[in-house]
Amino acid sequence: MPKDADKKLLAELEVIFGEDGLLSEPEDLISYSYDAFVREFRPLAVVLPRNKEQISRVLKLASQEVIPVVPRGAGTNLCGSSVARKGGIIICLSRMNRILELDPQNRLAVVQPGVINADLQKPAQRHNLFYPPDPASKSICTIGGNVALNAGGPRAVKYGVTRDYLLGTEMVLADGQIIRTGGRTAKNVSGYDLTGLICGSEGTLGVLSEITLRLIPKPPASATILACFASRKAAAGTVSKIMSLTDGTLPATLDLMDKVILDLLGDGTRLKLPAGLESLLMIEVDGPESAILEQSEQLEKLCWKTGAVKVERASDPQEAEALWEARYSYTGALCKVAPNVLTEDAVVPVDKLPEIIQVIERLREKHQVRVGVVAHAGDGNLHPEIMTDVNDEKEMSRVEDFIREMYESVIAMGGTLSGEHGIGLGKSKYMKMVCSDREIDLMRRIKAVFDPLNIINPGSFLTQDI
Amino acid sequence: MPKDADKKLLAELEVIFGEDGLLSEPEDLISYSYDAFVREFRPLAVVLPRNKEQISRVLKLASQEVIPVVPRGAGTNLCGSSVARKGGIIICLSRMNRILELDPQNRLAVVQPGVINADLQKPAQRHNLFYPPDPASKSICTIGGNVALNAGGPRAVKYGVTRDYLLGTEMVLADGQIIRTGGRTAKNVSGYDLTGLICGSEGTLGVLSEITLRLIPKPPASATILACFASRKAAAGTVSKIMSLTDGTLPATLDLMDKVILDLLGDGTRLKLPAGLESLLMIEVDGPESAILEQSEQLEKLCWKTGAVKVERASDPQEAEALWEARYSYTGALCKVAPNVLTEDAVVPVDKLPEIIQVIERLREKHQVRVGVVAHAGDGNLHPEIMTDVNDEKEMSRVEDFIREMYESVIAMGGTLSGEHGIGLGKSKYMKMVCSDREIDLMRRIKAVFDPLNIINPGSFLTQDI
Repeated sequence: MPKDADKKLLAELEVIFGEDGLLSEPEDLISYSYDAFVREFRPLAVVLPRNKEQISRVLKLASQEVIPVVPRGAGTNLCGSSVARKGGIIICLSRMNRILELDPQNRLAVVQPGVINADLQKPAQRHNLFYPPDPASKSICTIGGNVALNAGGPRAVKYGVTRDYLLGTEMVLADGQIIRTGGRTAKNVSGYDLTGLICGSEGTLGVLSEITLRLIPKPPASATILACFASRKAAAGTVSKIMSLTDGTLPATLDLMDKVILDLLGDGTRLKLPAGLESLLMIEVDGPESAILEQSEQLEKLCWKTGAVKVERASDPQEAEALWEARYSYTGALCKVAPNVLTEDAVVPVDKLPEIIQVIERLREKHQVRVGVVAHAGDGNLHPEIMTDVNDEKEMSRVEDFIREMYESVIAMGGTLSGEHGIGLGKSKYMKMVCSDREIDLMRRIKAVFDPLNIINPGSFLTQDI
Repeated sequence: MPKDADKKLLAELEVIFGEDGLLSEPEDLISYSYDAFVREFRPLAVVLPRNKEQISRVLKLASQEVIPVVPRGAGTNLCGSSVARKGGIIICLSRMNRILELDPQNRLAVVQPGVINADLQKPAQRHNLFYPPDPASKSICTIGGNVALNAGGPRAVKYGVTRDYLLGTEMVLADGQIIRTGGRTAKNVSGYDLTGLICGSEGTLGVLSEITLRLIPKPPASATILACFASRKAAAGTVSKIMSLTDGTLPATLDLMDKVILDLLGDGTRLKLPAGLESLLMIEVDGPESAILEQSEQLEKLCWKTGAVKVERASDPQEAEALWEARYSYTGALCKVAPNVLTEDAVVPVDKLPEIIQVIERLREKHQVRVGVVAHAGDGNLHPEIMTDVNDEKEMSRVEDFIREMYESVIAMGGTLSGEHGIGLGKSKYMKMVCSDREIDLMRRIKAVFDPLNIINPGSFLTQDI
């Protein structure tokens, strides 16, 4: 596009957004040229709408000029779903961050897409309510992004993912028209489930302007157990045992960290880890007070029996919170040992967990790649953390081989490419491992139903290079 | 279509299905000309496939000849989603009724679409597992139909609907090609959620040939409480109080029956109802043993406090089962008092329950229509049971007025047209109450992506008369 056309477009955007809601200086654009994935693409402009009318106007303009737009929340996406791969306009929804309604009687919240995940918890808790999805980035990521990627988190083992709490949306279509999908009721079978289709669509079908979420009663009690293992096999076996308990116990979370991650964490954290560990399990149970005491004692016993070398229970909710914070502190450590970290997001059926961990260990040896594994073990969702340097071509070629071979194994075991991070531009090249040509063709045609000019996030997972 | 073409088609169907799998005699066709709704349409033929190859072949033939096909399970649909409104071929999946896999370690089941809902429970229970969706017709309805209509049931209050347990499908497209959607893992964000789109699509996108379902640990204990009220207001108030308990209690079921239904039930059932009742609540709680005792005692106290005239707890699971059977026995009584029963399926936000019940009472007076109300009160899902005679034109016109005005009120309260029965041909005329023209247009285009010739269940909710 010639410079003059750019200038004209920027002038038109300024009419809609004012000076305050439009960013176009290079130093501003740099901040919006990447997300938590490793690829950078400079947008032409960033707009910061305050309402759906502004979203609608920018989309009308983009349709008229056939210019790409990319909806974006906090940019925490790990697979490049929120970058301007084809240039154009970033629609950053961070200013649309109001909780519009919190209705304790009907147990629902209506929020704007820019509301931070953790910011919904506090007001919900005042009514003893609870929004379960808890991605690791919960203190910074937005609900809009959570819906776009169908975010999960540790609690998905018991409580499911964003989709399970999404009642309805308001979405601006590519041509600027606004639709409402779903509603305010948990049961709703009135036409095709457009709400469900939007969830996990990686911001490719439209731009969300409002989201209605189901809340549930906050469990009155919870307990967090740390179980340390000197044997990887024993830890994996413990996961299988816990997940096949037949007494009704279902942990709210069942996370695993491997030796690489534990070594990075070291013993300086609140986790106070003994030396020589191969694996750590973090198990949370929640529910009625009386049951929790019983269940956590039983789980502790089980861990001792399956070979734990240390088992500890958080003494109170504050201590539990501190343990979880310590668990997440490894991400900082990762960034210190390598210029880049690629967080993968494989899922396998739970009983394949020991096998896939072995495969990962074998592949990291084979390809000489530095990889630690964190897993939401209870639902078979693994996050291999690859410590690398994206500017080192030779290493990246080994990393690519590692990733491809890992997903080949994952899929051979009945697993899939992504549990909670999405496909984005990072994994679109693997889509044919899980979808037939016909299935991808159906997705492309659905995309065209919503966005015939292909202007909304055109660089994401449905690119031509699938 | 001229008679000769029909004969040719029947001959081609016989090649695929043999004599045994093809029905075309008038007396056979009559049985497949209606479902649990009140409209009848004679198909040209009924085929009973035993495998996906046969489904694929009949769809290829139907595409070639541009003949409608209608997938059908047990025909328990209450809105006419499984009848051959445009003629053509009924594909009855009742012979594809095998449980292909029950995997306790990964807590999932893979079933053919013709498996009866209740038939999945028994093998699941042998592993202490549990498939929560429990439509009233569970002992006869099929899982395929449950997926097509996103079926719910009393337990949806706590456990959600079919969608919440659907992991993946195998589906035959209109042109006979077979796709697989979703997978075997609870977390899965790999492209658009086609699985979710199929769920609740009322058999209009393809014909299911395999279904993968998530199972959960069976709660070790449960308790069923019957609470009788002489005042409707007190009963509705009790529902609100239970649903806004802040101690974490969430009943598994919270059903309500009004005076009309209770009078039909009479005192001859296991429910042993006192005279003069206005409403009955059936409350089930489940979970860990210790918590259930506590919760059920607390709920009993609450019911006494909110004005119950009798509160009773089932002494054991068998007694509870008997009470639930008695609760469902009203359907037989309904059929005795009127030639036809129309079961409506409104949903309102829970706090609007008292209001919508009042509206229904007012409207049944105004239009002189005989209506009893059964409700899954905990999730605001009401089933007004309209006792009528579809051959009485004058009465039907009053019934139509009643239904339309009821849904107008429901939607004004933030509710919707269907919670668990679907739209079908019964309610397609009301779709514009809940969907804008643009939203309906999106649905039509999505339908065309899957079925460009519009041969799959063309007479259902996306008909031209929306």
